[in-house]
Amino acid sequence: MTTVDERDAFRTLWEQLLPIGAAPDGGYLRHGYTDAELACRSWFTDQAKSRGMAVETDGNGNLWAWWGDPDAGDALVTGSHLDSVPQGGAYDGPLGVVSAFLAVDALRAARITPSRPIGVVAFCEEEGSRFGVACLGSRLLTGALPVERGAALTDPAGTTLVDAMAAAGADTSRLGPDPARLSRIGHYVELHIEQGKGLVDTGAPVGVGTGIWPHGRWRFDFTGTADHAGTTAMADRHDPMLSYAMTALAANKQARLHDARATFGRIAVRPNGTNAIPSAVTGWLDARAADATTLESMLIELERQARDRVGRDGTALTVTAESVTPPIRFDDALARRLSTSLGAAGIAGSGAAGSAQGGTGPLPLLATGAGHDAGILSDAGVPTAMLFVRNPTGVSHSPAEATDDVDCLAGVRALTAALRELA
Amino acid sequence: MTTVDERDAFRTLWEQLLPIGAAPDGGYLRHGYTDAELACRSWFTDQAKSRGMAVETDGNGNLWAWWGDPDAGDALVTGSHLDSVPQGGAYDGPLGVVSAFLAVDALRAARITPSRPIGVVAFCEEEGSRFGVACLGSRLLTGALPVERGAALTDPAGTTLVDAMAAAGADTSRLGPDPARLSRIGHYVELHIEQGKGLVDTGAPVGVGTGIWPHGRWRFDFTGTADHAGTTAMADRHDPMLSYAMTALAANKQARLHDARATFGRIAVRPNGTNAIPSAVTGWLDARAADATTLESMLIELERQARDRVGRDGTALTVTAESVTPPIRFDDALARRLSTSLGAAGIAGSGAAGSAQGGTGPLPLLATGAGHDAGILSDAGVPTAMLFVRNPTGVSHSPAEATDDVDCLAGVRALTAALRELA
Repeated sequence: MTTVDERDAFRTLWEQLLPIGAAPDGGYLRHGYTDAELACRSWFTDQAKSRGMAVETDGNGNLWAWWGDPDAGDALVTGSHLDSVPQGGAYDGPLGVVSAFLAVDALRAARITPSRPIGVVAFCEEEGSRFGVACLGSRLLTGALPVERGAALTDPAGTTLVDAMAAAGADTSRLGPDPARLSRIGHYVELHIEQGKGLVDTGAPVGVGTGIWPHGRWRFDFTGTADHAGTTAMADRHDPMLSYAMTALAANKQARLHDARATFGRIAVRPNGTNAIPSAVTGWLDARAADATTLESMLIELERQARDRVGRDGTALTVTAESVTPPIRFDDALARRLSTSLGAAGIAGSGAAGSAQGGTGPLPLLATGAGHDAGILSDAGVPTAMLFVRNPTGVSHSPAEATDDVDCLAGVRALTAALRELA
Repeated sequence: MTTVDERDAFRTLWEQLLPIGAAPDGGYLRHGYTDAELACRSWFTDQAKSRGMAVETDGNGNLWAWWGDPDAGDALVTGSHLDSVPQGGAYDGPLGVVSAFLAVDALRAARITPSRPIGVVAFCEEEGSRFGVACLGSRLLTGALPVERGAALTDPAGTTLVDAMAAAGADTSRLGPDPARLSRIGHYVELHIEQGKGLVDTGAPVGVGTGIWPHGRWRFDFTGTADHAGTTAMADRHDPMLSYAMTALAANKQARLHDARATFGRIAVRPNGTNAIPSAVTGWLDARAADATTLESMLIELERQARDRVGRDGTALTVTAESVTPPIRFDDALARRLSTSLGAAGIAGSGAAGSAQGGTGPLPLLATGAGHDAGILSDAGVPTAMLFVRNPTGVSHSPAEATDDVDCLAGVRALTAALRELA
């Protein structure tokens, strides 16, 4: 079902983004308000202008492009984010923004006149890679993150969010909740590459999201006694690296036992010298589960085991919840409606649920362990839907993240059909 | 036995160094060729000039101050280093250089005319904190580190040693072995704060070194598969953080079993993002033991356990020896001679081996787990001795490193007596 024109249009947009923020050693570095991320923003603005869409930057660094007058209200908004984790893949975020512009093109090519304003959005710092809070732009917009806390967030170099915004020439006076802007949104639909292998066994290139697992980030600060690695007897040590190491292993084991996810992927060691026993080791736990009770039970058991080890090591532990997101269910009726109508429209092409000629079965419905701006908006009362594009390896947050153009184009068609149905 | 004048002279020199490179959060940051370390070098030059001593900087960044003509040969050299580990203590290194200048003053005050040139040295980058190789200046001087390898060493920012030297205005054309300079040294005596509690139970404020445990640094590079922390099923992961964590715990256990020392105090994680399973975790092992057989046996068992875990995690491991120093025995006859003569001279004051009025028993003899430039020179054939000053807590490589002025002055007297005996 893919046409040459569709594919050319996709590749043209896609290849404009590909060089921006490409790290010399693979993957992408597009943290919020860095040169690479600002270049992505320029690309967004150029795309909007070339389509005659008005561009706004809100007080929280989110970019909006409008087809129609957003002040008319009940807007239909689609998009995603442009920032990346360190050494992230190309698709996570940008695929949703590129697909949004291509869906606008497709609606116009089909001479659709929407009954509602249509917006394309790029949310700011969705990954939280620079300031430590995921979905930063949407959390500030909705007030899920208090503005005082957001303004004071610092990056690893100690730069505050406000200073980073000012250095990038952004207006910092409007930081914080923006209920007027939020109330203009009638529906939000976010397309995203899947970050697991949930679609692989279904055979469908596109699925519809049902919700997001409860998840969060907890900072484990282990402190001990700095000392000389060569001369301090093992029995005299209070080494926080040992407390951390046992906790990292326990997190993995508890996640398996709870059928959940727990990861220590980020660490800071002080002084981090080869011949010095550390004075402090900080590890960040990313934990998720299918429901809040399971998540809490896993965390309680992990912290108990960590404190037990800390007692034996003669170290100390402080656990701080940096961001915790309760379970989110997207609009159930909307998800079922899109699953059925998009499946019937045969958008998925060779979807297992239908025939090779365009199926009549519904698109797969699936929940995700990954947080998204769609979850923040859903939590703020916006009727929200997500579309996931198949990821054959399931790999994400890695330079190896990949999908193929045929599935990307199926995603664009699905998003176009969703907007057409809702517009 | 401490006089007010002695104490004043010590405090005057000591307090000149104290503010240099003091970190805002405690301890010192005096890495090679940084502003703080260059300020220490200026202090050294000023001290030498104020004593009418000629100053040379050799091709490897080591500083030499001369009383007498070094070209006469058979020089008696004393000193230590001025650089620090990150957040290191004040005494580790500088105490030996300050004591060296004060010993020169004491010999002159006693109207001693040395029969040999006397040199004060400050070796460059002894801690290896910036470029990763301990005793960098002395290793380059003796050729223990090949010059091609030394020149290409990089700091964490990617700056090579040669570029760092050039940026600091140093001449890089003479980098590498300097046998002529080495052959001028007839004896080397290094005074250092003890980095353990070996002297505490002896009651003596000063001890004489017998040698250095075999020790080294091994880099453990664990590689796995970067992936999304929230969406990747636990069973699908190849997480190098787990392999690292088990190895860090195993190192501690093996060190206890072997009555040795093993520490993972430095780590680098890639990409080091909270919601990313790492693609790579590098840990640096510092390991030491009383003899080479024990050290090797411990390493073999640790690597076996690490590879076993790597096999279960589906990760990979490369172990690289970054610097390995075999056991070093200082000049036995010299150590015994100094132990006896310094003890008999009652230098140790309230030493347990003697009476409060000046003992007649020998000073304690002790080996150390810490590497020193004295070990590099000894290995290169220079007759070498070390004097250790008591450290009541044993803490080192930490802002909490401490000793008291009375013991520092006993150290100055011991060094003076050693130089007097050898000069």
